[in-house]
Amino acid sequence: MSYRAPVDDMAFALTHSAGMGQALGEGLYGDFGADDVTAILEEAGRFAGDVLGPLNRAGDRHGAILRDGQVILPPGWKEAYTAWAAAGWNGLASPEQWGGQGLPRALNAACIEMWNSAAMAFGLGPILTMAGIDALAQHGSDELKEKYLAKLISGEWMGTMQLTEPQAGSDVGALRAKAERAGDGTYKITGQKIFITYGEHDLTDNIIHFVLARLPDAPPGTKGISLFLVPKFLLNKDGSLGARNDVRVHSLEHKLGIHASPTCTMVYGDKGGATAFLIGEENAGMTCMFTMMNEARLAVGLQGVAIAERATQQALQYARDRRQGREPGMQPDQSVAIIDHIDVRRMLLTMRALTRASRAICYATAVALDVAHRGKDEAARKAGNDRAALLTPVAKAFSTDIGIEVASLGIQVHGGMGFIEETGAAQHLRDARITAIYEGTNGIQAIDLVARKLPLNGGATVKACLEELRAIAKRVQDTNDPAFGATAAKLNAALDDLERATGWLLAQLKSAPQSALAGATPYLRLFGNTAGGCMLAEEALAALRLGDNGAQRDRVALARFFAENIVVQSGGLAAGVTEGAESVVSAPLPDSAA
Amino acid sequence: MSYRAPVDDMAFALTHSAGMGQALGEGLYGDFGADDVTAILEEAGRFAGDVLGPLNRAGDRHGAILRDGQVILPPGWKEAYTAWAAAGWNGLASPEQWGGQGLPRALNAACIEMWNSAAMAFGLGPILTMAGIDALAQHGSDELKEKYLAKLISGEWMGTMQLTEPQAGSDVGALRAKAERAGDGTYKITGQKIFITYGEHDLTDNIIHFVLARLPDAPPGTKGISLFLVPKFLLNKDGSLGARNDVRVHSLEHKLGIHASPTCTMVYGDKGGATAFLIGEENAGMTCMFTMMNEARLAVGLQGVAIAERATQQALQYARDRRQGREPGMQPDQSVAIIDHIDVRRMLLTMRALTRASRAICYATAVALDVAHRGKDEAARKAGNDRAALLTPVAKAFSTDIGIEVASLGIQVHGGMGFIEETGAAQHLRDARITAIYEGTNGIQAIDLVARKLPLNGGATVKACLEELRAIAKRVQDTNDPAFGATAAKLNAALDDLERATGWLLAQLKSAPQSALAGATPYLRLFGNTAGGCMLAEEALAALRLGDNGAQRDRVALARFFAENIVVQSGGLAAGVTEGAESVVSAPLPDSAA
Repeated sequence: MSYRAPVDDMAFALTHSAGMGQALGEGLYGDFGADDVTAILEEAGRFAGDVLGPLNRAGDRHGAILRDGQVILPPGWKEAYTAWAAAGWNGLASPEQWGGQGLPRALNAACIEMWNSAAMAFGLGPILTMAGIDALAQHGSDELKEKYLAKLISGEWMGTMQLTEPQAGSDVGALRAKAERAGDGTYKITGQKIFITYGEHDLTDNIIHFVLARLPDAPPGTKGISLFLVPKFLLNKDGSLGARNDVRVHSLEHKLGIHASPTCTMVYGDKGGATAFLIGEENAGMTCMFTMMNEARLAVGLQGVAIAERATQQALQYARDRRQGREPGMQPDQSVAIIDHIDVRRMLLTMRALTRASRAICYATAVALDVAHRGKDEAARKAGNDRAALLTPVAKAFSTDIGIEVASLGIQVHGGMGFIEETGAAQHLRDARITAIYEGTNGIQAIDLVARKLPLNGGATVKACLEELRAIAKRVQDTNDPAFGATAAKLNAALDDLERATGWLLAQLKSAPQSALAGATPYLRLFGNTAGGCMLAEEALAALRLGDNGAQRDRVALARFFAENIVVQSGGLAAGVTEGAESVVSAPLPDSAA
Repeated sequence: MSYRAPVDDMAFALTHSAGMGQALGEGLYGDFGADDVTAILEEAGRFAGDVLGPLNRAGDRHGAILRDGQVILPPGWKEAYTAWAAAGWNGLASPEQWGGQGLPRALNAACIEMWNSAAMAFGLGPILTMAGIDALAQHGSDELKEKYLAKLISGEWMGTMQLTEPQAGSDVGALRAKAERAGDGTYKITGQKIFITYGEHDLTDNIIHFVLARLPDAPPGTKGISLFLVPKFLLNKDGSLGARNDVRVHSLEHKLGIHASPTCTMVYGDKGGATAFLIGEENAGMTCMFTMMNEARLAVGLQGVAIAERATQQALQYARDRRQGREPGMQPDQSVAIIDHIDVRRMLLTMRALTRASRAICYATAVALDVAHRGKDEAARKAGNDRAALLTPVAKAFSTDIGIEVASLGIQVHGGMGFIEETGAAQHLRDARITAIYEGTNGIQAIDLVARKLPLNGGATVKACLEELRAIAKRVQDTNDPAFGATAAKLNAALDDLERATGWLLAQLKSAPQSALAGATPYLRLFGNTAGGCMLAEEALAALRLGDNGAQRDRVALARFFAENIVVQSGGLAAGVTEGAESVVSAPLPDSAA
């Protein structure tokens, strides 16, 4: 079925739980106003629903095809991409200096969600381009920017991120691709990269690869990695396309999902080496890589939200249409829509609530990035940067776990039809499954959260975040509105658990770091559930304040559902963190396969 | 990678947590002894590993194909099936009177797990045959048994269960397939059935369909359904194959998983009606259907265990082989196997513990079925029957949820490789996903547990079960063994939660049944987690008692891991049951798709 962008929900989340309303009020975005937000979301929503949405099933069926060294995307994809880029969507939040629109990252986040709801295999490509743009804009020389940035920002060319090699997946430092100084300021790259998303395709005339490689005299590990720009076609002096560079696609992977997104093995140096241009300093590639990675991680989190949203829409529609079974007192030949069965309701509410909670967290991360870039002073920008750093692993891992869980629930709502590929519900699960893996597995996100983000500023960054969440719970309590049920109590109990677990982890990191890392995954979920619950409550409070046409009761009811049914997992999750570590560390795993 | 049947674990679970040891001691199985259990499991394990295991990937790739009205299974499948049936595996627990071996259902349960671990799309076929055998043996006329039972039990012919129609999925009572009395004691069936597993194939010469249909004068709903036996080929007087019956496959579904298992749309009556033979009484088909369904539900639960086991084996192997990253203090060019990363350990332990817990529950259900059939007196048989009735929805839904979760974790352990189809990890998730849907969705299982099983004998059945679990926790406590950590405390807390939730539901069923059903799904999970945790503890106690070669510490450590990390979810689950219902009942779902 078709996708319809939930523009109202998106605008509401941006404004009221993610902090964009406050940022607008503080003039962070200049004269860009709330009306502009809605107008752009509506326009993006139309494009996503009308043009991209229909690509999704056909893209899954056709997949990307490798023929004679060319990668061909499914019918209609090139036309859709060209129209999408021409409409300016690629450069929405990119610097105006290079032709971008310079609009809020938070707005772009909502748009990224839309592109990926409509067709995740499509939405993925621009995520890589945008990551490359960030790296180039922040670390590239003026000359490189001059030549490449405008065309990347316009979307005329797409970008790729090339990190992974067979022996270097999560451990980027183990990569071996070789970069040799050519003597003229350029480099020659040889080697192989795997799992390269959109490494080759027919959407654009040129493809700009952002490639990590190692100089011959580089130190081992992550300290010896450099970032290079490698265009598929070298440029002539006048900027026109010149010689084909010495990089080619070797093969495509046969994957569980995102079939239309070509996942390439790339070979460098058949003819002596691909011409490459250094970005930043030699051996300083990791810094550049993290510039690419951080926004890409948020974008992958948004893919989780996106799939959850689309799966929820589809399940809701099916549950309204499909009639099966009866309510007590009905005749045997009567039937009700399955949405009226209480267990189906629970599934749908769970899908809806988890989707909205993950959206709020992702958008809040994007607003924090805006503050980091636009804050009125150094202190504000640093606070924004730290908040974004803290939330990024949660946005990535929590939202993608949610995407998978919600897509799986979506199949369940469909019953037997959910297992039939033509229904489309199964594709959401297949597509979603990669999001917990790429751009740093969710386990790595959890470790990043615990080991690197909690200790930020001696724990002050996480403390400030928890205090804001606590204030929301307090405001819920202060309403004394019975419609909230036990929301305030459940949020406070979860915040107690989260604070306790946070304190325990911070202490443990110093004395027994393995024990801290053992609980990283349940801790991240505890963080996501609790923050998400508070943010939904914040939206409910805003709705009550605004008194908007009856929908306010819906938001209160959903916040309550989330608090009473999902936030309540906090005790078990916290126990896993603070009491379960020893058994994880000490339990044996068998030597034999069984 | 290949599958190796975990014979020791299976025998241990059968004997020590599922109750087979006690049943053997009480002479329930005659002179069949513990050594026989091991010998048969080993033989089955060899067959599963050597013959069936290699079918799995090829079966997924080839799938079942419909050509000119014939369904062709993948290369090697017919040969494997023929060898499997010839070895007597199909009739392992079937009545000796008709050529079966009359061995324990619990032993057959372990074998069913093996067939499905090796190749779930293969193992599924015999599950349907066995269900048909049960229905025919219990409800069929002597003449029908004489003609069909021996060949079904030998596996020379396979059986199908034909319930579903487009408008009649979960609501069987809505079916419309028509059966008209032919005047000679037979019936003529016309209509259409969908989602018919192994409805047509080339494994056997004849296929015996067990079909639900409605007589012209039948009352509406489930009270007007009759069960019929419809052979693909009618039999001549001498039992040889005669005329082709008027039933045919119309199409195959294109599914997310179990590609080699043909899911058929069946058409009856192109030429006036398929000749059918009544099983049991007219309009009493639901009773017969439940005979088929109940053991099939347990078998589907075993598929969940099976997939979880295979996914765990594969993930363990990969985590041992794959080297990536370092431990503190290692050089940049060194690396460790990823099994040594603590977060990967947590995933693997979770997979292993959940697999074993679901296995224990399924096997305990099978032992209860043995008691129901073989118990020394009426009271013992009734107690066995009631215990099996109570546990069946848990065995089905908990184990299949676990199968899906563990298969998904298996992908995660593989990182990027998990998303590549050639790795095989993704197939487990694709295959597993149907198990939560067919033979009664897991939501229906949860409702069955709450609405029909908890009230059994005025609540005495569930009470007796909980008391047994409580006694295990007590025995753990009595060991005072520090290796158990907080196992006893966590089990007792969960049992408190489970008892409280049970009492609340029993009360609620009388006053506000919708509120009870709203919490059915979290209640079933609470039940499964708690019972599973107790059963793993029971295995640990047995291991300590036996002092078996060091492996006892492993069982204690795993029971502890499960208690401290999974059983601790009890508080949140119980809160969802007893406090979350109101928000499920009252929260609105939007009118629009968004």
